[in-house]
Amino acid sequence: MRFISEQRLDDGVLEREFTLGEIPGTLWTPGSAAPAPLILMAHNNGLPKSASRLVARARLSAAAGYAVASIDARGCGDRPRSADEERARADFRRAMQAGDPADEVFESFIGPLVEKAAPDWRTALDALLALPGIGGPVGYSGWTALGIRLATLEPRIAAAGFFAGGYVPRAQREQAPQVAIPLLLLLQWDDEGNPRQRALDLFDAFGSTEKTLHANLGGHLGTPWFEREDGDRFFGRHLR
Amino acid sequence: MRFISEQRLDDGVLEREFTLGEIPGTLWTPGSAAPAPLILMAHNNGLPKSASRLVARARLSAAAGYAVASIDARGCGDRPRSADEERARADFRRAMQAGDPADEVFESFIGPLVEKAAPDWRTALDALLALPGIGGPVGYSGWTALGIRLATLEPRIAAAGFFAGGYVPRAQREQAPQVAIPLLLLLQWDDEGNPRQRALDLFDAFGSTEKTLHANLGGHLGTPWFEREDGDRFFGRHLR
Repeated sequence: MRFISEQRLDDGVLEREFTLGEIPGTLWTPGSAAPAPLILMAHNNGLPKSASRLVARARLSAAAGYAVASIDARGCGDRPRSADEERARADFRRAMQAGDPADEVFESFIGPLVEKAAPDWRTALDALLALPGIGGPVGYSGWTALGIRLATLEPRIAAAGFFAGGYVPRAQREQAPQVAIPLLLLLQWDDEGNPRQRALDLFDAFGSTEKTLHANLGGHLGTPWFEREDGDRFFGRHLR
Repeated sequence: MRFISEQRLDDGVLEREFTLGEIPGTLWTPGSAAPAPLILMAHNNGLPKSASRLVARARLSAAAGYAVASIDARGCGDRPRSADEERARADFRRAMQAGDPADEVFESFIGPLVEKAAPDWRTALDALLALPGIGGPVGYSGWTALGIRLATLEPRIAAAGFFAGGYVPRAQREQAPQVAIPLLLLLQWDDEGNPRQRALDLFDAFGSTEKTLHANLGGHLGTPWFEREDGDRFFGRHLR
Protein backbone atom coordinates (compact mmCIF):
# COMPACT_ATOMS: atom_id res chain seq x y z
CA MET A 1 0.00 0.00 0.00
CA ARG A 2 1.43 3.29 -1.08
CA PHE A 3 0.06 6.63 0.16
CA ILE A 4 0.12 9.21 -2.60
CA SER A 5 -1.45 12.26 -0.97
CA GLU A 6 -2.75 13.38 2.37
CA GLN A 7 -4.90 16.15 3.74
CA ARG A 8 -5.62 17.10 7.36
CA LEU A 9 -9.23 18.26 7.71
CA ASP A 10 -10.48 20.90 10.16
CA ASP A 11 -11.78 18.34 12.65
CA GLY A 12 -8.41 16.57 12.77
CA VAL A 13 -9.39 13.75 10.40
CA LEU A 14 -6.52 12.62 8.17
CA GLU A 15 -7.65 11.84 4.59
CA ARG A 16 -5.15 9.88 2.55
CA GLU A 17 -5.26 8.62 -1.01
CA PHE A 18 -3.48 5.33 -1.60
CA THR A 19 -2.83 2.76 -4.28
CA LEU A 20 -2.55 -0.95 -3.73
CA GLY A 21 -1.38 -2.50 -6.98
CA GLU A 22 -4.06 -1.37 -9.42
CA ILE A 23 -6.54 -0.52 -6.68
CA PRO A 24 -7.01 3.17 -5.81
CA GLY A 25 -8.32 3.87 -2.33
CA THR A 26 -8.96 6.52 0.28
CA LEU A 27 -8.43 6.13 4.01
CA TRP A 28 -9.91 8.48 6.59
CA THR A 29 -8.56 8.20 10.14
CA PRO A 30 -9.54 10.11 13.29
CA GLY A 31 -7.28 12.80 14.72
CA SER A 32 -6.71 10.87 17.94
CA ALA A 33 -3.87 8.36 18.17
CA ALA A 34 -5.99 5.58 19.74
CA PRO A 35 -6.55 2.45 17.62
CA ALA A 36 -9.73 2.88 15.59
CA PRO A 37 -12.12 0.15 14.38
CA LEU A 38 -12.25 -0.06 10.59
CA ILE A 39 -15.34 0.49 8.45
CA LEU A 40 -15.24 -0.46 4.78
CA MET A 41 -17.54 1.96 2.96
CA ALA A 42 -18.76 1.13 -0.55
CA HIS A 43 -21.00 3.21 -2.77
CA ASN A 44 -23.98 1.47 -4.37
CA ASN A 45 -23.51 -0.22 -7.74
CA GLY A 46 -19.85 0.62 -8.12
CA LEU A 47 -20.19 4.39 -8.04
CA PRO A 48 -16.85 6.11 -7.39
CA LYS A 49 -15.29 6.42 -3.93
CA SER A 50 -14.84 10.12 -4.71
CA ALA A 51 -18.61 10.73 -4.86
CA SER A 52 -19.42 13.62 -2.56
CA ARG A 53 -22.08 11.84 -0.50
CA LEU A 54 -19.74 8.95 0.26
CA VAL A 55 -16.87 11.30 1.12
CA ALA A 56 -19.12 13.33 3.46
CA ARG A 57 -20.26 10.16 5.27
CA ALA A 58 -16.72 8.85 5.55
CA ARG A 59 -15.36 12.11 6.98
CA LEU A 60 -18.09 12.32 9.61
CA SER A 61 -17.62 8.69 10.69
CA ALA A 62 -13.86 9.27 10.94
CA ALA A 63 -14.51 12.36 13.07
CA ALA A 64 -16.64 10.07 15.28
CA GLY A 65 -13.64 7.80 15.88
CA TYR A 66 -13.64 5.23 13.07
CA ALA A 67 -11.03 4.45 10.45
CA VAL A 68 -12.98 4.46 7.18
CA ALA A 69 -11.73 3.13 3.87
CA SER A 70 -13.16 3.06 0.38
CA ILE A 71 -11.72 1.76 -2.87
CA ASP A 72 -12.62 1.76 -6.51
CA ALA A 73 -12.69 -2.00 -7.02
CA ARG A 74 -12.25 -3.59 -10.43
CA GLY A 75 -14.93 -2.28 -12.80
CA CYS A 76 -16.04 0.35 -10.28
CA GLY A 77 -15.61 4.11 -9.98
CA ASP A 78 -12.91 5.46 -12.27
CA ARG A 79 -11.26 2.10 -12.98
CA PRO A 80 -10.79 1.22 -16.68
CA ARG A 81 -13.58 -0.90 -18.12
CA SER A 82 -13.91 -3.26 -21.05
CA ALA A 83 -16.21 -2.37 -23.94
CA ASP A 84 -18.68 -4.97 -22.64
CA GLU A 85 -18.65 -3.43 -19.19
CA GLU A 86 -19.16 0.05 -20.63
CA ARG A 87 -22.10 -1.20 -22.67
CA ALA A 88 -23.74 -2.93 -19.69
CA ARG A 89 -23.28 0.21 -17.59
CA ALA A 90 -24.83 2.42 -20.29
CA ASP A 91 -27.76 -0.01 -20.72
CA PHE A 92 -28.36 0.01 -16.99
CA ARG A 93 -28.31 3.80 -16.75
CA ARG A 94 -30.69 4.10 -19.72
CA ALA A 95 -33.14 1.58 -18.28
CA MET A 96 -33.15 3.27 -14.85
CA GLN A 97 -33.60 6.76 -16.32
CA ALA A 98 -36.39 5.60 -18.63
CA GLY A 99 -38.08 3.73 -15.80
CA ASP A 100 -37.94 0.56 -17.89
CA PRO A 101 -37.95 -2.88 -16.28
CA ALA A 102 -34.33 -3.13 -15.16
CA ASP A 103 -34.13 -6.64 -13.73
CA GLU A 104 -32.35 -8.32 -16.63
CA VAL A 105 -29.95 -5.53 -17.40
CA PHE A 106 -29.32 -5.11 -13.68
CA GLU A 107 -28.54 -8.79 -13.37
CA SER A 108 -26.14 -8.75 -16.32
CA PHE A 109 -24.38 -5.59 -15.10
CA ILE A 110 -24.37 -5.70 -11.30
CA GLY A 111 -24.08 -9.47 -10.88
CA PRO A 112 -20.59 -9.69 -12.47
CA LEU A 113 -19.56 -6.35 -10.93
CA VAL A 114 -20.10 -7.72 -7.42
CA GLU A 115 -18.13 -10.89 -8.20
CA LYS A 116 -15.20 -8.90 -9.60
CA ALA A 117 -15.24 -6.26 -6.88
CA ALA A 118 -15.16 -8.60 -3.87
CA PRO A 119 -11.53 -9.82 -4.27
CA ASP A 120 -10.22 -6.23 -4.45
CA TRP A 121 -12.03 -5.36 -1.21
CA ARG A 122 -10.48 -8.40 0.48
CA THR A 123 -7.03 -7.39 -0.77
CA ALA A 124 -7.59 -3.90 0.60
CA LEU A 125 -8.80 -5.33 3.92
CA ASP A 126 -5.56 -7.32 4.33
CA ALA A 127 -3.46 -4.22 3.69
CA LEU A 128 -5.57 -1.92 5.87
CA LEU A 129 -5.46 -4.22 8.89
CA ALA A 130 -1.66 -4.33 8.60
CA LEU A 131 -1.47 -0.56 9.18
CA PRO A 132 -0.63 0.72 12.65
CA GLY A 133 -3.57 2.20 14.55
CA ILE A 134 -6.26 0.27 12.66
CA GLY A 135 -7.91 -2.57 14.54
CA GLY A 136 -10.55 -5.19 14.11
CA PRO A 137 -13.30 -6.21 14.20
CA VAL A 138 -14.33 -4.71 10.90
CA GLY A 139 -17.57 -3.12 9.82
CA TYR A 140 -19.02 -2.73 6.34
CA SER A 141 -21.29 0.10 5.21
CA GLY A 142 -23.17 0.88 2.01
CA TRP A 143 -23.72 -1.15 -1.16
CA THR A 144 -26.00 -4.02 -0.18
CA ALA A 145 -25.06 -6.59 -2.84
CA LEU A 146 -21.31 -6.27 -2.31
CA GLY A 147 -21.82 -6.36 1.45
CA ILE A 148 -23.74 -9.63 1.23
CA ARG A 149 -21.00 -11.13 -0.93
CA LEU A 150 -18.25 -9.97 1.41
CA ALA A 151 -20.12 -11.13 4.51
CA THR A 152 -20.31 -14.65 3.07
CA LEU A 153 -16.58 -14.68 2.19
CA GLU A 154 -14.96 -12.71 4.96
CA PRO A 155 -15.13 -13.75 8.63
CA ARG A 156 -13.33 -10.56 9.69
CA ILE A 157 -16.45 -8.50 8.90
CA ALA A 158 -18.37 -8.40 12.19
CA ALA A 159 -21.30 -6.09 11.43
CA ALA A 160 -22.77 -4.43 8.37
CA GLY A 161 -25.01 -1.51 7.49
CA PHE A 162 -26.73 -1.84 4.12
CA PHE A 163 -28.54 0.85 2.13
CA ALA A 164 -31.58 0.40 -0.13
CA GLY A 165 -31.70 -3.27 -1.14
CA GLY A 166 -34.58 -3.08 -3.59
CA TYR A 167 -32.42 -4.32 -6.45
CA VAL A 168 -29.92 -7.01 -5.52
CA PRO A 169 -28.56 -9.63 -7.94
CA ARG A 170 -30.06 -13.09 -7.73
CA ALA A 171 -26.84 -14.61 -6.38
CA GLN A 172 -26.84 -12.22 -3.42
CA ARG A 173 -30.56 -12.69 -2.75
CA GLU A 174 -29.77 -16.40 -2.50
CA GLN A 175 -26.81 -15.72 -0.21
CA ALA A 176 -28.83 -13.55 2.18
CA PRO A 177 -29.79 -16.44 4.51
CA GLN A 178 -26.06 -17.19 4.96
CA VAL A 179 -25.42 -13.72 6.32
CA ALA A 180 -25.37 -14.16 10.10
CA ILE A 181 -23.66 -11.01 11.40
CA PRO A 182 -25.56 -8.12 13.04
CA LEU A 183 -27.18 -5.96 10.37
CA LEU A 184 -28.70 -2.53 10.01
CA LEU A 185 -30.73 -2.19 6.81
CA LEU A 186 -31.53 1.40 5.91
CA LEU A 187 -34.17 2.07 3.30
CA GLN A 188 -36.07 5.01 1.91
CA TRP A 189 -39.80 4.31 1.99
CA ASP A 190 -40.46 5.93 -1.41
CA ASP A 191 -37.17 5.08 -3.12
CA GLU A 192 -37.97 5.49 -6.81
CA GLY A 193 -35.30 2.98 -7.84
CA ASN A 194 -35.77 0.36 -5.12
CA PRO A 195 -39.09 -1.46 -4.82
CA ARG A 196 -40.07 -1.36 -1.15
CA GLN A 197 -41.44 -4.88 -0.92
CA ARG A 198 -38.22 -6.38 -2.27
CA ALA A 199 -36.19 -4.55 0.33
CA LEU A 200 -38.53 -5.81 3.07
CA ASP A 201 -38.27 -9.35 1.68
CA LEU A 202 -34.48 -9.09 1.71
CA PHE A 203 -34.52 -7.91 5.33
CA ASP A 204 -36.70 -10.90 6.14
CA ALA A 205 -34.32 -13.29 4.35
CA PHE A 206 -31.10 -12.44 6.20
CA GLY A 207 -29.94 -15.20 8.53
CA SER A 208 -28.80 -12.81 11.26
CA THR A 209 -30.38 -13.17 14.69
CA GLU A 210 -29.76 -9.47 15.29
CA LYS A 211 -31.05 -7.32 12.47
CA THR A 212 -32.64 -3.90 12.50
CA LEU A 213 -34.53 -2.09 9.76
CA HIS A 214 -34.66 1.69 9.59
CA ALA A 215 -37.04 3.22 7.05
CA ASN A 216 -37.66 6.90 6.46
CA LEU A 217 -40.17 8.73 4.33
CA GLY A 218 -38.81 10.05 1.04
CA GLY A 219 -36.90 9.17 -2.10
CA HIS A 220 -33.51 7.57 -2.75
CA LEU A 221 -31.48 10.67 -1.91
CA GLY A 222 -33.61 11.78 1.03
CA THR A 223 -32.04 9.81 3.88
CA PRO A 224 -32.18 12.09 6.95
CA TRP A 225 -28.92 13.19 8.54
CA PHE A 226 -29.55 11.42 11.82
CA GLU A 227 -29.26 8.01 10.14
CA ARG A 228 -25.53 8.54 9.74
CA GLU A 229 -25.23 8.98 13.47
CA ASP A 230 -27.47 5.95 14.02
CA GLY A 231 -25.06 4.00 11.80
CA ASP A 232 -22.10 5.05 13.93
CA ARG A 233 -24.02 3.97 17.03
CA PHE A 234 -24.77 0.59 15.43
CA PHE A 235 -21.07 0.09 14.71
CA GLY A 236 -20.26 1.33 18.20
CA ARG A 237 -22.28 -1.56 19.63
CA HIS A 238 -20.50 -4.16 17.54
CA LEU A 239 -16.97 -2.94 16.82
CA ARG A 240 -15.89 -1.42 20.14
CA MET B 1 -52.86 17.55 41.30
CA ARG B 2 -51.90 16.08 44.64
CA PHE B 3 -48.61 14.24 45.19
CA ILE B 4 -49.12 11.30 47.52
CA SER B 5 -45.68 9.72 47.68
CA GLU B 6 -42.18 10.31 46.40
CA GLN B 7 -39.00 8.34 46.02
CA ARG B 8 -35.53 9.55 45.02
CA LEU B 9 -33.79 6.91 42.86
CA ASP B 10 -30.04 6.22 42.76
CA ASP B 11 -29.49 8.24 39.59
CA GLY B 12 -31.18 11.30 41.06
CA VAL B 13 -34.53 10.75 39.34
CA LEU B 14 -37.51 11.77 41.48
CA GLU B 15 -40.47 9.38 41.15
CA ARG B 16 -43.75 10.76 42.47
CA GLU B 17 -47.22 9.22 42.64
CA PHE B 18 -50.05 11.67 42.24
CA THR B 19 -53.81 11.83 41.99
CA LEU B 20 -55.75 14.25 39.86
CA GLY B 21 -59.42 13.88 40.73
CA GLU B 22 -60.04 10.20 40.05
CA ILE B 23 -56.91 9.82 37.88
CA PRO B 24 -53.88 8.14 39.47
CA GLY B 25 -50.55 9.00 37.90
CA THR B 26 -46.79 8.79 38.23
CA LEU B 27 -44.32 11.52 37.38
CA TRP B 28 -40.60 10.91 36.91
CA THR B 29 -38.35 13.98 36.77
CA PRO B 30 -34.58 14.25 36.28
CA GLY B 31 -32.29 15.10 39.18
CA SER B 32 -31.18 18.37 37.61
CA ALA B 33 -33.14 21.54 38.22
CA ALA B 34 -33.24 22.61 34.54
CA PRO B 35 -36.68 22.63 32.86
CA ALA B 36 -37.31 19.24 31.24
CA PRO B 37 -39.42 18.48 28.17
CA LEU B 38 -42.39 16.26 29.00
CA ILE B 39 -43.05 12.79 27.57
CA LEU B 40 -46.45 11.18 28.11
CA MET B 41 -45.86 7.44 28.30
CA ALA B 42 -48.79 5.04 27.87
CA HIS B 43 -48.73 1.27 28.01
CA ASN B 44 -50.42 -0.61 25.17
CA ASN B 45 -54.12 -1.44 25.47
CA GLY B 46 -54.61 0.18 28.83
CA LEU B 47 -52.15 -1.96 30.79
CA PRO B 48 -51.27 -0.38 34.16
CA LYS B 49 -48.78 2.44 34.56
CA SER B 50 -47.16 0.34 37.28
CA ALA B 51 -46.13 -2.41 34.81
CA SER B 52 -42.43 -3.06 35.27
CA ARG B 53 -41.43 -2.53 31.64
CA LEU B 54 -43.10 0.86 31.48
CA VAL B 55 -41.59 1.90 34.80
CA ALA B 56 -38.11 0.86 33.64
CA ARG B 57 -38.47 2.86 30.41
CA ALA B 58 -39.78 5.90 32.24
CA ARG B 59 -36.95 5.88 34.79
CA LEU B 60 -34.27 5.66 32.10
CA SER B 61 -35.80 8.45 30.04
CA ALA B 62 -36.01 10.63 33.16
CA ALA B 63 -32.35 9.89 33.87
CA ALA B 64 -31.67 11.07 30.31
CA GLY B 65 -33.23 14.44 31.07
CA TYR B 66 -36.95 14.12 30.35
CA ALA B 67 -39.94 14.58 32.61
CA VAL B 68 -42.03 11.44 32.05
CA ALA B 69 -45.61 10.96 33.15
CA SER B 70 -48.01 8.05 32.99
CA ILE B 71 -51.58 7.69 34.23
CA ASP B 72 -54.17 4.98 34.56
CA ALA B 73 -56.86 6.59 32.45
CA ARG B 74 -60.52 5.69 32.79
CA GLY B 75 -60.99 1.94 32.20
CA CYS B 76 -57.20 1.38 32.19
CA GLY B 77 -54.72 -0.12 34.64
CA ASP B 78 -56.17 -0.51 38.11
CA ARG B 79 -59.13 1.83 37.59
CA PRO B 80 -62.58 0.41 38.44
CA ARG B 81 -64.42 -1.07 35.49
CA SER B 82 -68.03 -1.78 34.66
CA ALA B 83 -69.22 -5.37 34.25
CA ASP B 84 -69.36 -4.78 30.47
CA GLU B 85 -65.78 -3.53 30.45
CA GLU B 86 -64.62 -6.49 32.52
CA ARG B 87 -66.34 -8.87 30.11
CA ALA B 88 -64.82 -7.20 27.02
CA ARG B 89 -61.38 -7.32 28.62
CA ALA B 90 -61.75 -11.03 29.48
CA ASP B 91 -62.99 -11.83 25.96
CA PHE B 92 -60.03 -10.01 24.49
CA ARG B 93 -57.50 -11.81 26.67
CA ARG B 94 -59.09 -15.18 25.87
CA ALA B 95 -59.05 -14.53 22.12
CA MET B 96 -55.41 -13.39 22.17
CA GLN B 97 -54.28 -16.36 24.27
CA ALA B 98 -56.18 -18.84 22.11
CA GLY B 99 -54.81 -17.24 18.95
CA ASP B 100 -58.42 -16.73 17.78
CA PRO B 101 -59.33 -13.99 15.31
CA ALA B 102 -59.39 -10.97 17.61
CA ASP B 103 -60.51 -8.18 15.32
CA GLU B 104 -64.11 -7.94 16.47
CA VAL B 105 -63.44 -8.37 20.14
CA PHE B 106 -60.49 -6.00 19.81
CA GLU B 107 -62.71 -3.42 18.19
CA SER B 108 -65.40 -3.71 20.85
CA PHE B 109 -62.88 -3.54 23.70
CA ILE B 110 -60.07 -1.23 22.60
CA GLY B 111 -62.14 1.16 20.47
CA PRO B 112 -64.18 2.49 23.43
CA LEU B 113 -61.16 2.29 25.76
CA VAL B 114 -59.24 4.75 23.57
CA GLU B 115 -62.18 7.15 23.43
CA LYS B 116 -62.61 7.09 27.21
CA ALA B 117 -58.90 7.32 27.98
CA ALA B 118 -58.08 10.35 25.81
CA PRO B 119 -59.86 13.00 27.97
CA ASP B 120 -58.03 11.83 31.12
CA TRP B 121 -54.68 12.18 29.35
CA ARG B 122 -55.58 15.72 28.29
CA THR B 123 -56.61 16.60 31.84
CA ALA B 124 -53.29 15.22 33.07
CA LEU B 125 -51.42 17.18 30.40
CA ASP B 126 -52.99 20.46 31.57
CA ALA B 127 -51.97 19.77 35.17
CA LEU B 128 -48.46 18.57 34.31
CA LEU B 129 -47.63 21.61 32.19
CA ALA B 130 -48.69 23.85 35.09
CA LEU B 131 -45.97 22.35 37.31
CA PRO B 132 -42.70 24.26 37.73
CA GLY B 133 -39.75 22.78 35.82
CA ILE B 134 -41.84 21.02 33.18
CA GLY B 135 -41.83 22.56 29.74
CA GLY B 136 -43.27 22.04 26.31
CA PRO B 137 -43.28 20.94 23.57
CA VAL B 138 -44.62 17.57 24.60
CA GLY B 139 -43.79 14.08 23.37
CA TYR B 140 -45.91 10.93 23.47
CA SER B 141 -44.56 7.40 23.74
CA GLY B 142 -46.12 3.95 23.64
CA TRP B 143 -49.68 2.80 22.93
CA THR B 144 -50.27 3.45 19.25
CA ALA B 145 -54.05 3.79 19.18
CA LEU B 146 -54.21 6.25 22.08
CA GLY B 147 -51.32 8.20 20.58
CA ILE B 148 -53.12 8.59 17.27
CA ARG B 149 -56.25 9.78 19.08
CA LEU B 150 -54.31 12.27 21.20
CA ALA B 151 -52.31 13.54 18.22
CA THR B 152 -55.54 14.40 16.41
CA LEU B 153 -56.97 16.20 19.48
CA GLU B 154 -53.99 17.82 21.10
CA PRO B 155 -51.82 20.42 19.33
CA ARG B 156 -49.40 20.51 22.26
CA ILE B 157 -48.07 17.04 21.31
CA ALA B 158 -45.14 17.73 18.99
CA ALA B 159 -43.68 14.27 18.34
CA ALA B 160 -44.67 10.68 19.05
CA GLY B 161 -43.06 7.27 19.30
CA PHE B 162 -45.49 4.40 18.76
CA PHE B 163 -44.97 0.72 19.53
CA ALA B 164 -46.36 -2.25 17.57
CA GLY B 165 -49.38 -1.03 15.63
CA GLY B 166 -50.52 -4.36 14.24
CA TYR B 167 -53.91 -4.06 15.94
CA VAL B 168 -55.37 -0.58 16.01
CA PRO B 169 -59.11 0.19 16.17
CA ARG B 170 -60.79 1.19 12.93
CA ALA B 171 -61.35 4.77 14.11
CA GLN B 172 -57.63 5.26 14.69
CA ARG B 173 -56.66 3.61 11.40
CA GLU B 174 -58.94 6.14 9.73
CA GLN B 175 -57.38 8.99 11.74
CA ALA B 176 -53.80 8.02 10.82
CA PRO B 177 -53.64 10.31 7.74
CA GLN B 178 -54.52 13.27 10.00
CA VAL B 179 -51.45 12.67 12.15
CA ALA B 180 -48.87 15.14 10.88
CA ILE B 181 -46.28 15.35 13.68
CA PRO B 182 -42.86 13.64 13.46
CA LEU B 183 -43.22 9.94 14.26
CA LEU B 184 -41.05 7.01 15.21
CA LEU B 185 -42.87 3.70 14.76
CA LEU B 186 -41.15 0.81 16.51
CA LEU B 187 -42.18 -2.71 15.64
CA GLN B 188 -41.03 -6.23 16.34
CA TRP B 189 -40.65 -8.13 13.06
CA ASP B 190 -42.09 -11.38 14.46
CA ASP B 191 -44.58 -9.91 16.92
CA GLU B 192 -46.97 -12.79 17.59
CA GLY B 193 -49.86 -10.44 18.43
CA ASN B 194 -49.32 -7.78 15.77
CA PRO B 195 -49.56 -8.72 12.09
CA ARG B 196 -46.50 -7.22 10.38
CA GLN B 197 -48.24 -6.09 7.21
CA ARG B 198 -50.85 -4.14 9.14
CA ALA B 199 -48.14 -2.29 11.04
CA LEU B 200 -46.36 -1.46 7.76
CA ASP B 201 -49.66 -0.28 6.26
CA LEU B 202 -50.25 1.93 9.28
CA PHE B 203 -46.77 3.45 8.92
CA ASP B 204 -47.56 4.13 5.29
CA ALA B 205 -50.88 5.79 6.20
CA PHE B 206 -49.61 8.41 8.63
CA GLY B 207 -49.78 11.93 7.22
CA SER B 208 -46.46 13.01 8.73
CA THR B 209 -43.77 14.23 6.37
CA GLU B 210 -41.15 13.07 8.84
CA LYS B 211 -41.68 9.49 9.93
CA THR B 212 -39.22 6.76 10.74
CA LEU B 213 -39.80 3.03 11.12
CA HIS B 214 -37.56 0.88 13.31
CA ALA B 215 -38.05 -2.87 13.10
CA ASN B 216 -36.10 -5.52 14.96
CA LEU B 217 -36.07 -9.28 14.74
CA GLY B 218 -38.01 -11.05 17.46
CA GLY B 219 -41.34 -11.27 19.26
CA HIS B 220 -43.50 -8.73 21.07
CA LEU B 221 -41.35 -8.58 24.20
CA GLY B 222 -38.00 -8.74 22.40
CA THR B 223 -37.36 -5.05 21.64
CA PRO B 224 -33.59 -4.52 22.03
CA TRP B 225 -32.36 -2.14 24.74
CA PHE B 226 -30.85 0.33 22.27
CA GLU B 227 -34.30 1.28 20.95
CA ARG B 228 -35.03 3.06 24.21
CA GLU B 229 -31.97 5.24 23.65
CA ASP B 230 -33.01 5.75 20.02
CA GLY B 231 -36.37 6.92 21.30
CA ASP B 232 -34.70 9.48 23.58
CA ARG B 233 -32.65 10.69 20.61
CA PHE B 234 -35.80 11.03 18.51
CA PHE B 235 -37.42 13.14 21.24
CA GLY B 236 -34.17 15.07 21.61
CA ARG B 237 -34.47 16.16 17.98
CA HIS B 238 -38.04 17.38 18.38
CA LEU B 239 -38.53 18.51 21.97
CA ARG B 240 -35.30 20.35 22.77
